Amino acid sequence: MAVTDVPTQRDASTDELTKRLAELESRVAELEEARPEDRVSLVIFSGDLDRVLAGFVLATGAAAVGQQVSMFFTFWGLNVLKKSTRLEGKSFFEKMMAIMSPGGSEDLPVSKMNYFGVGAKMLRKMMKDKNVSSLEEMMDLARELEVKMVACEMSRDVMGIGIDELVDGLESGGVASFMADALDSRASLFI
Amino acid sequence: MAVTDVPTQRDASTDELTKRLAELESRVAELEEARPEDRVSLVIFSGDLDRVLAGFVLATGAAAVGQQVSMFFTFWGLNVLKKSTRLEGKSFFEKMMAIMSPGGSEDLPVSKMNYFGVGAKMLRKMMKDKNVSSLEEMMDLARELEVKMVACEMSRDVMGIGIDELVDGLESGGVASFMADALDSRASLFI
Amino acid sequence: MAVTDVPTQRDASTDELTKRLAELESRVAELEEARPEDRVSLVIFSGDLDRVLAGFVLATGAAAVGQQVSMFFTFWGLNVLKKSTRLEGKSFFEKMMAIMSPGGSEDLPVSKMNYFGVGAKMLRKMMKDKNVSSLEEMMDLARELEVKMVACEMSRDVMGIGIDELVDGLESGGVASFMADALDSRASLFI
Repeated sequence: MAVTDVPTQRDASTDELTKRLAELESRVAELEEARPEDRVSLVIFSGDLDRVLAGFVLATGAAAVGQQVSMFFTFWGLNVLKKSTRLEGKSFFEKMMAIMSPGGSEDLPVSKMNYFGVGAKMLRKMMKDKNVSSLEEMMDLARELEVKMVACEMSRDVMGIGIDELVDGLESGGVASFMADALDSRASLFI
Repeated sequence: MAVTDVPTQRDASTDELTKRLAELESRVAELEEARPEDRVSLVIFSGDLDRVLAGFVLATGAAAVGQQVSMFFTFWGLNVLKKSTRLEGKSFFEKMMAIMSPGGSEDLPVSKMNYFGVGAKMLRKMMKDKNVSSLEEMMDLARELEVKMVACEMSRDVMGIGIDELVDGLESGGVASFMADALDSRASLFI
Repeated sequence: MAVTDVPTQRDASTDELTKRLAELESRVAELEEARPEDRVSLVIFSGDLDRVLAGFVLATGAAAVGQQVSMFFTFWGLNVLKKSTRLEGKSFFEKMMAIMSPGGSEDLPVSKMNYFGVGAKMLRKMMKDKNVSSLEEMMDLARELEVKMVACEMSRDVMGIGIDELVDGLESGGVASFMADALDSRASLFI
Protein backbone atom coordinates (compact mmCIF):
# COMPACT_ATOMS: atom_id res chain seq x y z
CA MET A 1 0.00 0.00 0.00
CA ALA A 2 2.67 2.40 1.06
CA VAL A 3 4.68 1.54 -1.98
CA THR A 4 1.81 2.11 -4.43
CA ASP A 5 0.88 5.29 -2.59
CA VAL A 6 4.25 6.79 -3.24
CA PRO A 7 4.09 6.93 -7.04
CA THR A 8 0.61 8.41 -6.82
CA GLN A 9 1.78 11.24 -4.55
CA ARG A 10 4.91 11.75 -6.62
CA ASP A 11 2.93 11.96 -9.85
CA ALA A 12 0.56 14.51 -8.38
CA SER A 13 3.44 16.73 -7.37
CA THR A 14 5.66 16.37 -10.45
CA ASP A 15 2.59 16.67 -12.64
CA GLU A 16 1.78 19.98 -11.07
CA LEU A 17 5.41 21.12 -11.42
CA THR A 18 5.44 20.02 -15.05
CA LYS A 19 2.29 21.99 -15.71
CA ARG A 20 3.62 25.14 -14.05
CA LEU A 21 6.91 24.75 -15.87
CA ALA A 22 5.20 24.38 -19.24
CA GLU A 23 3.11 27.48 -18.57
CA LEU A 24 6.21 29.42 -17.58
CA GLU A 25 8.05 28.23 -20.68
CA SER A 26 5.34 29.65 -22.88
CA ARG A 27 5.36 32.97 -20.98
CA VAL A 28 9.15 33.19 -21.40
CA ALA A 29 8.85 32.36 -25.10
CA GLU A 30 6.36 35.22 -25.44
CA LEU A 31 8.74 37.62 -23.69
CA GLU A 32 11.58 36.48 -25.96
CA GLU A 33 9.35 37.05 -28.97
CA ALA A 34 8.55 40.61 -27.82
CA ARG A 35 12.13 41.44 -26.92
CA PRO A 36 13.57 44.16 -29.15
CA GLU A 37 16.35 43.18 -31.51
CA ASP A 38 19.81 44.73 -31.33
CA ARG A 39 18.57 47.42 -33.66
CA VAL A 40 18.47 51.21 -33.97
CA SER A 41 16.07 53.01 -36.34
CA LEU A 42 16.46 56.56 -37.57
CA VAL A 43 14.10 58.77 -39.57
CA ILE A 44 16.17 61.25 -41.57
CA PHE A 45 13.54 63.91 -42.22
CA SER A 46 15.91 66.87 -42.37
CA GLY A 47 18.05 67.72 -45.34
CA ASP A 48 20.35 70.04 -43.39
CA LEU A 49 24.02 69.10 -43.44
CA ASP A 50 24.43 69.45 -39.68
CA ARG A 51 21.44 67.28 -38.78
CA VAL A 52 22.24 64.70 -41.47
CA LEU A 53 25.81 64.47 -40.17
CA ALA A 54 24.45 63.85 -36.68
CA GLY A 55 22.28 61.11 -38.19
CA PHE A 56 25.23 59.37 -39.81
CA VAL A 57 27.41 59.72 -36.70
CA LEU A 58 24.63 58.01 -34.71
CA ALA A 59 24.04 55.37 -37.41
CA THR A 60 27.69 54.38 -37.81
CA GLY A 61 28.24 54.64 -34.04
CA ALA A 62 25.36 52.23 -33.43
CA ALA A 63 26.57 49.84 -36.13
CA ALA A 64 30.07 49.95 -34.62
CA VAL A 65 28.72 48.58 -31.33
CA GLY A 66 26.96 45.72 -33.07
CA GLN A 67 23.49 47.13 -33.73
CA GLN A 68 21.59 46.60 -36.94
CA VAL A 69 20.74 50.07 -38.18
CA SER A 70 17.88 51.29 -40.39
CA MET A 71 17.83 54.81 -41.82
CA PHE A 72 14.54 55.91 -43.33
CA PHE A 73 15.00 58.97 -45.57
CA THR A 74 11.88 61.06 -46.01
CA PHE A 75 10.94 64.59 -47.15
CA TRP A 76 14.05 66.82 -47.26
CA GLY A 77 16.14 63.85 -46.18
CA LEU A 78 15.77 62.46 -49.70
CA ASN A 79 18.09 65.25 -50.91
CA VAL A 80 20.94 63.45 -49.14
CA LEU A 81 20.49 60.51 -51.48
CA LYS A 82 20.30 62.36 -54.80
CA LYS A 83 22.91 61.58 -57.39
CA SER A 84 21.40 63.65 -60.20
CA THR A 85 18.44 65.87 -60.98
CA ARG A 86 16.17 65.00 -63.88
CA LEU A 87 13.58 67.52 -65.10
CA GLU A 88 11.95 65.76 -68.07
CA GLY A 89 8.73 63.97 -67.26
CA LYS A 90 8.05 66.12 -64.22
CA SER A 91 5.09 68.41 -63.48
CA PHE A 92 5.60 72.15 -63.03
CA PHE A 93 5.68 71.88 -59.25
CA GLU A 94 7.98 68.86 -59.32
CA LYS A 95 10.39 70.81 -61.54
CA MET A 96 10.29 73.79 -59.18
CA MET A 97 10.93 71.51 -56.21
CA ALA A 98 13.79 69.80 -58.07
CA ILE A 99 15.43 73.10 -59.01
CA MET A 100 15.14 74.62 -55.56
CA SER A 101 16.35 71.52 -53.70
CA PRO A 102 19.98 70.52 -53.18
CA GLY A 103 21.18 68.17 -55.90
CA GLY A 104 22.86 65.74 -53.53
CA SER A 105 24.78 65.37 -50.30
CA GLU A 106 27.45 67.86 -51.38
CA ASP A 107 24.89 70.64 -51.79
CA LEU A 108 23.17 70.40 -48.40
CA PRO A 109 22.85 73.67 -46.47
CA VAL A 110 23.30 73.96 -42.70
CA SER A 111 20.26 74.67 -40.51
CA LYS A 112 21.81 77.79 -38.96
CA MET A 113 24.12 80.48 -40.31
CA ASN A 114 24.04 79.11 -43.83
CA TYR A 115 24.53 82.47 -45.63
CA PHE A 116 23.98 81.03 -49.12
CA GLY A 117 26.24 78.04 -48.55
CA VAL A 118 29.09 79.70 -46.65
CA GLY A 119 28.00 78.02 -43.42
CA ALA A 120 28.04 74.56 -45.00
CA LYS A 121 31.48 75.15 -46.56
CA MET A 122 32.76 76.42 -43.22
CA LEU A 123 31.45 73.38 -41.35
CA ARG A 124 33.04 71.03 -43.92
CA LYS A 125 36.36 72.91 -43.68
CA MET A 126 36.31 72.79 -39.87
CA MET A 127 35.61 69.05 -39.95
CA LYS A 128 38.44 68.47 -42.40
CA ASP A 129 40.85 70.50 -40.25
CA LYS A 130 40.08 68.15 -37.35
CA ASN A 131 40.30 65.02 -39.48
CA VAL A 132 36.64 64.23 -38.96
CA SER A 133 35.18 62.15 -41.81
CA SER A 134 33.12 64.06 -44.35
CA LEU A 135 29.45 63.26 -44.88
CA GLU A 136 30.32 61.31 -48.03
CA GLU A 137 32.94 59.24 -46.17
CA MET A 138 30.41 58.56 -43.40
CA MET A 139 27.87 57.43 -46.01
CA ASP A 140 30.47 55.02 -47.43
CA LEU A 141 31.24 53.77 -43.94
CA ALA A 142 27.52 53.28 -43.25
CA ARG A 143 27.27 51.15 -46.39
CA GLU A 144 30.29 49.09 -45.37
CA LEU A 145 28.72 48.53 -41.95
CA GLU A 146 25.58 47.33 -43.77
CA VAL A 147 23.37 50.11 -42.50
CA LYS A 148 20.01 49.68 -44.25
CA MET A 149 19.01 52.85 -46.13
CA VAL A 150 15.39 53.17 -47.17
CA ALA A 151 14.00 55.92 -49.43
CA CYS A 152 10.44 56.86 -48.44
CA GLU A 153 8.08 55.94 -51.27
CA MET A 154 5.38 58.47 -50.45
CA SER A 155 7.85 61.39 -50.31
CA ARG A 156 9.39 60.30 -53.60
CA ASP A 157 5.95 60.12 -55.11
CA VAL A 158 4.79 63.53 -53.79
CA MET A 159 8.00 65.28 -54.82
CA GLY A 160 8.20 63.36 -58.09
CA ILE A 161 11.69 62.01 -57.44
CA GLY A 162 12.45 58.91 -59.51
CA ILE A 163 14.48 56.08 -58.02
CA ASP A 164 16.90 56.68 -60.93
CA GLU A 165 17.74 60.09 -59.43
CA LEU A 166 18.94 58.50 -56.19
CA VAL A 167 22.21 56.76 -55.34
CA ASP A 168 22.42 52.99 -55.74
CA GLY A 169 21.92 50.36 -53.07
CA LEU A 170 18.79 51.82 -51.48
CA GLU A 171 15.65 50.01 -50.48
CA SER A 172 12.29 51.60 -51.18
CA GLY A 173 9.58 51.47 -48.52
CA GLY A 174 6.74 53.19 -46.78
CA VAL A 175 5.87 54.06 -43.22
CA ALA A 176 4.93 50.43 -42.50
CA SER A 177 8.48 49.35 -43.31
CA PHE A 178 9.92 51.97 -40.96
CA MET A 179 7.43 51.12 -38.24
CA ALA A 180 8.26 47.39 -38.43
CA ASP A 181 11.92 48.17 -37.73
CA ALA A 182 11.24 50.87 -35.11
CA LEU A 183 8.94 48.60 -33.08
CA ASP A 184 11.75 46.04 -32.85
CA SER A 185 14.44 48.60 -32.02
CA ARG A 186 16.17 49.45 -28.80
CA ALA A 187 16.20 53.12 -29.79
CA SER A 188 14.44 55.15 -32.49
CA LEU A 189 15.19 58.78 -33.31
CA PHE A 190 13.54 61.36 -35.59
CA ILE A 191 16.21 63.61 -37.06
CA MET B 1 12.95 2.00 6.03
CA ALA B 2 13.59 2.06 2.34
CA VAL B 3 9.96 2.89 1.70
CA THR B 4 9.88 5.80 4.13
CA ASP B 5 13.21 7.02 2.79
CA VAL B 6 11.82 7.43 -0.65
CA PRO B 7 9.25 10.14 0.09
CA THR B 8 11.83 12.06 2.10
CA GLN B 9 14.26 12.09 -0.79
CA ARG B 10 11.52 12.92 -3.23
CA ASP B 11 10.23 15.77 -1.06
CA ALA B 12 13.66 17.27 -0.77
CA SER B 13 14.07 17.29 -4.53
CA THR B 14 10.55 18.42 -5.52
CA ASP B 15 10.58 20.95 -2.71
CA GLU B 16 13.70 22.47 -4.16
CA LEU B 17 12.22 22.45 -7.67
CA THR B 18 9.02 24.04 -6.37
CA LYS B 19 11.04 26.77 -4.69
CA ARG B 20 13.10 27.48 -7.81
CA LEU B 21 9.97 27.46 -9.93
CA ALA B 22 8.19 29.92 -7.63
CA GLU B 23 11.18 32.22 -7.71
CA LEU B 24 11.33 32.04 -11.48
CA GLU B 25 7.60 32.72 -11.73
CA SER B 26 8.03 35.94 -9.81
CA ARG B 27 10.99 36.99 -11.99
CA VAL B 28 8.94 36.33 -15.13
CA ALA B 29 6.01 38.28 -13.68
CA GLU B 30 8.37 41.21 -13.11
CA LEU B 31 9.62 41.05 -16.69
CA GLU B 32 6.03 40.94 -17.96
CA GLU B 33 5.21 43.97 -15.81
CA ALA B 34 8.16 45.90 -17.29
CA ARG B 35 7.46 44.86 -20.85
CA PRO B 36 6.47 47.83 -23.03
CA GLU B 37 2.93 47.95 -24.34
CA ASP B 38 2.14 47.91 -28.05
CA ARG B 39 2.38 51.66 -27.99
CA VAL B 40 4.07 54.51 -29.86
CA SER B 41 4.42 58.02 -28.39
CA LEU B 42 5.09 61.18 -30.36
CA VAL B 43 5.89 64.71 -29.19
CA ILE B 44 4.65 67.15 -31.83
CA PHE B 45 6.77 70.18 -30.96
CA SER B 46 6.96 71.62 -34.46
CA GLY B 47 4.18 73.61 -36.08
CA ASP B 48 5.59 73.24 -39.60
CA LEU B 49 3.28 71.55 -42.11
CA ASP B 50 5.97 69.17 -43.38
CA ARG B 51 7.03 67.94 -39.93
CA VAL B 52 3.44 67.72 -38.68
CA LEU B 53 2.51 65.67 -41.76
CA ALA B 54 5.39 63.30 -40.98
CA GLY B 55 4.02 63.06 -37.44
CA PHE B 56 0.55 62.09 -38.63
CA VAL B 57 1.89 59.63 -41.22
CA LEU B 58 3.85 57.92 -38.42
CA ALA B 59 0.90 58.07 -35.98
CA THR B 60 -1.66 56.62 -38.39
CA GLY B 61 0.91 54.11 -39.70
CA ALA B 62 1.58 52.87 -36.17
CA ALA B 63 -2.14 52.68 -35.37
CA ALA B 64 -2.72 50.75 -38.60
CA VAL B 65 -0.35 47.99 -37.42
CA GLY B 66 -2.15 47.70 -34.10
CA GLN B 67 -0.21 50.09 -31.88
CA GLN B 68 -1.85 52.41 -29.38
CA VAL B 69 -0.64 55.89 -30.29
CA SER B 70 -0.22 59.01 -28.16
CA MET B 71 0.50 62.39 -29.71
CA PHE B 72 1.57 65.11 -27.29
CA PHE B 73 1.23 68.57 -28.87
CA THR B 74 3.46 71.21 -27.33
CA PHE B 75 4.84 74.67 -28.20
CA TRP B 76 4.33 75.39 -31.93
CA GLY B 77 2.62 72.02 -32.28
CA LEU B 78 -0.42 73.51 -30.54
CA ASN B 79 -1.07 75.57 -33.70
CA VAL B 80 -2.07 72.34 -35.42
CA LEU B 81 -4.99 71.99 -33.03
CA LYS B 82 -6.37 75.53 -33.20
CA LYS B 83 -9.92 75.97 -34.43
CA SER B 84 -10.19 79.70 -33.73
CA THR B 85 -8.21 82.59 -32.32
CA ARG B 86 -9.62 84.56 -29.43
CA LEU B 87 -7.99 87.86 -28.40
CA GLU B 88 -10.16 89.12 -25.52
CA GLY B 89 -8.89 88.29 -22.07
CA LYS B 90 -5.30 87.93 -23.28
CA SER B 91 -2.20 89.85 -22.22
CA PHE B 92 -0.30 91.99 -24.73
CA PHE B 93 2.27 89.24 -25.40
CA GLU B 94 -0.40 86.56 -25.64
CA LYS B 95 -2.23 88.69 -28.23
CA MET B 96 0.97 89.20 -30.21
CA MET B 97 1.68 85.47 -30.10
CA ALA B 98 -1.89 84.70 -31.18
CA ILE B 99 -1.78 87.15 -34.11
CA MET B 100 1.60 85.98 -35.37
CA SER B 101 0.83 82.24 -35.07
CA PRO B 102 -1.07 80.17 -37.61
CA GLY B 103 -4.77 80.03 -36.84
CA GLY B 104 -5.06 76.28 -37.37
CA SER B 105 -3.86 73.30 -39.38
CA GLU B 106 -4.72 74.99 -42.70
CA ASP B 107 -2.40 77.92 -41.99
CA LEU B 108 0.76 75.99 -41.12
CA PRO B 109 3.92 77.06 -42.98
CA VAL B 110 6.56 74.62 -44.23
CA SER B 111 9.96 74.52 -42.54
CA LYS B 112 11.86 75.19 -45.81
CA MET B 113 11.06 77.27 -48.88
CA ASN B 114 7.88 78.70 -47.36
CA TYR B 115 8.01 82.06 -49.25
CA PHE B 116 5.06 83.57 -47.33
CA GLY B 117 2.89 80.48 -47.68
CA VAL B 118 3.67 79.52 -51.29
CA GLY B 119 5.70 76.52 -50.14
CA ALA B 120 2.84 75.19 -48.01
CA LYS B 121 0.32 75.64 -50.85
CA MET B 122 2.73 73.94 -53.25
CA LEU B 123 3.23 70.97 -50.91
CA ARG B 124 -0.54 70.60 -50.45
CA LYS B 125 -1.07 70.78 -54.23
CA MET B 126 1.63 68.18 -54.88
CA MET B 127 0.09 65.85 -52.29
CA LYS B 128 -3.35 66.27 -53.82
CA ASP B 129 -2.00 65.55 -57.32
CA LYS B 130 -0.67 62.23 -56.01
CA ASN B 131 -3.85 61.39 -54.10
CA VAL B 132 -2.06 61.58 -50.77
CA SER B 133 -4.41 62.47 -47.89
CA SER B 134 -4.30 66.08 -46.73
CA LEU B 135 -3.26 66.92 -43.17
CA GLU B 136 -6.92 67.41 -42.22
CA GLU B 137 -7.87 64.00 -43.64
CA MET B 138 -4.98 62.42 -41.74
CA MET B 139 -6.16 64.11 -38.53
CA ASP B 140 -9.65 62.65 -39.09
CA LEU B 141 -8.13 59.23 -39.76
CA ALA B 142 -6.05 59.51 -36.58
CA ARG B 143 -9.23 60.22 -34.61
CA GLU B 144 -10.99 57.23 -36.21
CA LEU B 145 -8.03 55.03 -35.29
CA GLU B 146 -8.38 56.32 -31.71
CA VAL B 147 -5.01 58.02 -31.63
CA LYS B 148 -4.83 59.86 -28.30
CA MET B 149 -4.14 63.58 -28.78
CA VAL B 150 -2.97 65.54 -25.77
CA ALA B 151 -2.57 69.33 -25.65
CA CYS B 152 0.36 70.33 -23.42
CA GLU B 153 -0.97 72.26 -20.43
CA MET B 154 2.19 74.22 -19.73
CA SER B 155 2.50 75.44 -23.34
CA ARG B 156 -1.17 76.44 -23.38
CA ASP B 157 -0.63 78.32 -20.14
CA VAL B 158 2.54 80.11 -21.26
CA MET B 159 1.09 81.08 -24.64
CA GLY B 160 -2.31 81.91 -23.15
CA ILE B 161 -4.22 79.52 -25.41
CA GLY B 162 -7.59 78.54 -23.98
CA ILE B 163 -8.89 75.01 -24.43
CA ASP B 164 -11.90 76.68 -26.17
CA GLU B 165 -9.56 77.78 -28.98
CA LEU B 166 -8.59 74.17 -29.75
CA VAL B 167 -10.44 71.47 -31.67
CA ASP B 168 -12.68 69.08 -29.75
CA GLY B 169 -11.79 65.65 -28.46
CA LEU B 170 -8.39 66.50 -26.99
CA GLU B 171 -7.02 65.48 -23.65
CA SER B 172 -5.08 68.00 -21.59
CA GLY B 173 -1.91 66.91 -19.81
CA GLY B 174 1.59 67.77 -18.73
CA VAL B 175 5.00 66.24 -19.20
CA ALA B 176 4.19 63.53 -16.62
CA SER B 177 1.35 62.31 -18.80
CA PHE B 178 3.62 62.13 -21.86
CA MET B 179 6.38 60.44 -19.90
CA ALA B 180 4.01 57.78 -18.55
CA ASP B 181 3.10 56.80 -22.12
CA ALA B 182 6.63 57.10 -23.51
CA LEU B 183 8.12 54.85 -20.82
CA ASP B 184 5.64 52.14 -21.80
CA SER B 185 6.19 52.58 -25.55
CA ARG B 186 8.08 50.51 -28.08
CA ALA B 187 9.12 53.70 -29.88
CA SER B 188 9.04 57.40 -28.95
CA LEU B 189 9.87 60.24 -31.34
CA PHE B 190 10.30 64.01 -30.91
CA ILE B 191 9.04 65.77 -34.02
CA MET C 1 12.00 -4.44 -6.84
CA ALA C 2 9.02 -2.13 -6.71
CA VAL C 3 10.77 -0.05 -4.08
CA THR C 4 13.98 0.31 -6.08
CA ASP C 5 11.97 1.03 -9.18
CA VAL C 6 10.37 4.05 -7.64
CA PRO C 7 13.48 6.16 -7.19
CA THR C 8 14.55 5.36 -10.73
CA GLN C 9 11.27 6.61 -12.15
CA ARG C 10 11.29 9.63 -9.90
CA ASP C 11 14.84 10.52 -10.84
CA ALA C 12 14.03 10.35 -14.52
CA SER C 13 11.14 12.74 -14.11
CA THR C 14 12.69 15.19 -11.65
CA ASP C 15 15.91 15.12 -13.62
CA GLU C 16 14.04 16.21 -16.68
CA LEU C 17 12.22 18.92 -14.73
CA THR C 18 15.51 20.11 -13.24
CA LYS C 19 17.02 20.31 -16.66
CA ARG C 20 14.10 22.27 -18.12
CA LEU C 21 14.09 24.55 -15.09
CA ALA C 22 17.80 25.27 -15.41
CA GLU C 23 17.39 26.06 -19.07
CA LEU C 24 14.49 28.38 -18.32
CA GLU C 25 16.48 30.08 -15.57
CA SER C 26 19.21 30.94 -18.03
CA ARG C 27 16.70 32.24 -20.59
CA VAL C 28 15.10 34.44 -17.91
CA ALA C 29 18.53 35.69 -16.82
CA GLU C 30 19.21 36.66 -20.42
CA LEU C 31 15.92 38.55 -20.65
CA GLU C 32 16.72 40.34 -17.39
CA GLU C 33 20.13 41.27 -18.75
CA ALA C 34 18.55 42.72 -21.92
CA ARG C 35 15.80 44.57 -20.06
CA PRO C 36 16.17 48.34 -20.39
CA GLU C 37 17.03 50.31 -17.28
CA ASP C 38 14.73 52.97 -15.86
CA ARG C 39 16.50 55.46 -18.06
CA VAL C 40 15.71 58.18 -20.61
CA SER C 41 18.33 59.51 -23.06
CA LEU C 42 18.13 62.81 -24.90
CA VAL C 43 20.30 64.23 -27.67
CA ILE C 44 20.22 68.03 -27.43
CA PHE C 45 21.29 68.93 -30.95
CA SER C 46 19.39 72.21 -31.20
CA GLY C 47 20.55 75.45 -29.64
CA ASP C 48 17.13 77.12 -29.91
CA LEU C 49 15.64 78.29 -26.62
CA ASP C 50 12.24 76.73 -27.31
CA ARG C 51 13.60 73.28 -28.21
CA VAL C 52 16.16 73.34 -25.38
CA LEU C 53 13.39 74.24 -22.92
CA ALA C 54 11.37 71.27 -24.17
CA GLY C 55 14.47 69.13 -23.62
CA PHE C 56 14.86 70.24 -20.01
CA VAL C 57 11.13 69.89 -19.29
CA LEU C 58 11.34 66.29 -20.54
CA ALA C 59 14.61 65.62 -18.68
CA THR C 60 13.43 66.95 -15.32
CA GLY C 61 10.00 65.37 -15.84
CA ALA C 62 11.59 61.98 -16.44
CA ALA C 63 13.91 62.37 -13.43
CA ALA C 64 10.92 63.36 -11.28
CA VAL C 65 9.26 59.99 -12.00
CA GLY C 66 12.39 58.09 -11.03
CA GLN C 67 14.21 57.70 -14.33
CA GLN C 68 17.95 58.11 -14.70
CA VAL C 69 18.40 60.76 -17.38
CA SER C 70 21.26 61.37 -19.81
CA MET C 71 21.45 64.53 -21.90
CA PHE C 72 24.00 64.49 -24.71
CA PHE C 73 24.72 68.02 -25.96
CA THR C 74 26.04 68.17 -29.51
CA PHE C 75 26.42 70.74 -32.32
CA TRP C 76 24.33 73.86 -31.54
CA GLY C 77 23.27 72.27 -28.27
CA LEU C 78 26.76 73.00 -26.91
CA ASN C 79 25.82 76.70 -26.86
CA VAL C 80 23.47 75.94 -23.96
CA LEU C 81 26.46 74.93 -21.85
CA LYS C 82 28.75 77.88 -22.58
CA LYS C 83 29.82 80.01 -19.66
CA SER C 84 32.28 82.20 -21.57
CA THR C 85 33.74 82.69 -25.01
CA ARG C 86 37.49 82.52 -25.47
CA LEU C 87 39.03 83.63 -28.78
CA GLU C 88 42.78 83.22 -28.21
CA GLY C 89 44.24 79.99 -29.50
CA LYS C 90 41.44 79.50 -32.04
CA SER C 91 41.62 79.22 -35.81
CA PHE C 92 39.91 81.81 -38.02
CA PHE C 93 36.82 79.65 -38.53
CA GLU C 94 36.64 78.73 -34.86
CA LYS C 95 36.72 82.43 -33.98
CA MET C 96 33.98 83.19 -36.50
CA MET C 97 31.88 80.33 -35.13
CA ALA C 98 32.49 81.56 -31.56
CA ILE C 99 31.51 85.14 -32.37
CA MET C 100 28.38 84.20 -34.29
CA SER C 101 27.14 81.66 -31.71
CA PRO C 102 25.22 82.49 -28.54
CA GLY C 103 27.55 82.96 -25.56
CA GLY C 104 25.48 80.78 -23.24
CA SER C 105 21.96 79.74 -22.23
CA GLU C 106 20.83 83.36 -21.75
CA ASP C 107 21.63 84.24 -25.36
CA LEU C 108 19.76 81.43 -27.11
CA PRO C 109 17.39 82.49 -29.91
CA VAL C 110 13.99 80.89 -30.53
CA SER C 111 13.50 78.73 -33.61
CA LYS C 112 10.55 80.81 -34.90
CA MET C 113 9.75 84.52 -34.75
CA ASN C 114 13.06 85.41 -33.18
CA TYR C 115 13.31 88.91 -34.73
CA PHE C 116 16.86 89.55 -33.49
CA GLY C 117 16.17 88.28 -29.99
CA VAL C 118 12.73 89.80 -29.40
CA GLY C 119 11.08 86.38 -29.67
CA ALA C 120 13.37 84.87 -27.04
CA LYS C 121 12.80 87.80 -24.66
CA MET C 122 9.05 87.51 -25.24
CA LEU C 123 9.03 83.77 -24.54
CA ARG C 124 11.03 84.30 -21.34
CA LYS C 125 8.66 87.10 -20.24
CA MET C 126 5.60 84.97 -20.94
CA MET C 127 7.08 82.08 -18.95
CA LYS C 128 7.87 84.38 -16.03
CA ASP C 129 4.34 85.81 -16.06
CA LYS C 130 3.00 82.28 -15.64
CA ASN C 131 5.54 81.35 -12.96
CA VAL C 132 7.15 78.74 -15.20
CA SER C 133 10.81 78.11 -14.31
CA SER C 134 13.37 79.79 -16.55
CA LEU C 135 15.83 77.70 -18.56
CA GLU C 136 18.55 78.45 -16.00
CA GLU C 137 16.33 77.33 -13.12
CA MET C 138 15.50 74.13 -15.04
CA MET C 139 19.21 73.50 -15.59
CA ASP C 140 19.81 73.87 -11.84
CA LEU C 141 16.90 71.52 -11.14
CA ALA C 142 18.30 69.00 -13.62
CA ARG C 143 21.63 69.10 -11.76
CA GLU C 144 19.88 68.61 -8.41
CA LEU C 145 18.02 65.63 -9.86
CA GLU C 146 21.39 64.23 -10.97
CA VAL C 147 20.63 64.38 -14.66
CA LYS C 148 23.84 63.38 -16.46
CA MET C 149 24.97 66.07 -18.90
CA VAL C 150 27.53 65.07 -21.51
CA ALA C 151 29.28 67.49 -23.89
CA CYS C 152 29.94 65.85 -27.27
CA GLU C 153 33.68 65.57 -27.79
CA MET C 154 33.61 65.55 -31.59
CA SER C 155 31.45 68.69 -31.77
CA ARG C 156 33.72 70.46 -29.29
CA ASP C 157 36.69 69.45 -31.36
CA VAL C 158 35.20 70.53 -34.72
CA MET C 159 33.96 73.86 -33.36
CA GLY C 160 37.11 74.41 -31.31
CA ILE C 161 35.25 74.83 -28.03
CA GLY C 162 37.47 74.15 -25.00
CA ILE C 163 36.05 72.41 -21.95
CA ASP C 164 37.09 75.57 -20.04
CA GLU C 165 34.47 77.52 -22.00
CA LEU C 166 31.66 75.29 -20.72
CA VAL C 167 29.86 75.24 -17.37
CA ASP C 168 31.17 72.94 -14.63
CA GLY C 169 29.97 69.47 -13.78
CA LEU C 170 29.78 68.10 -17.32
CA GLU C 171 31.01 64.79 -18.58
CA SER C 172 32.79 64.59 -21.90
CA GLY C 173 31.97 61.75 -24.29
CA GLY C 174 31.44 60.62 -27.83
CA VAL C 175 28.68 58.89 -29.73
CA ALA C 176 29.61 55.55 -28.13
CA SER C 177 28.84 56.97 -24.72
CA PHE C 178 25.43 58.24 -25.88
CA MET C 179 24.66 54.97 -27.63
CA ALA C 180 25.48 52.92 -24.53
CA ASP C 181 22.88 54.88 -22.54
CA ALA C 182 20.30 55.00 -25.35
CA LEU C 183 20.40 51.23 -25.90
CA ASP C 184 19.57 50.71 -22.22
CA SER C 185 16.83 53.37 -22.17
CA ARG C 186 13.06 53.08 -22.11
CA ALA C 187 12.83 56.18 -24.32
CA SER C 188 15.34 58.14 -26.42
CA LEU C 189 14.62 61.44 -28.13
CA PHE C 190 16.55 63.64 -30.58
CA ILE C 191 15.80 67.29 -29.85
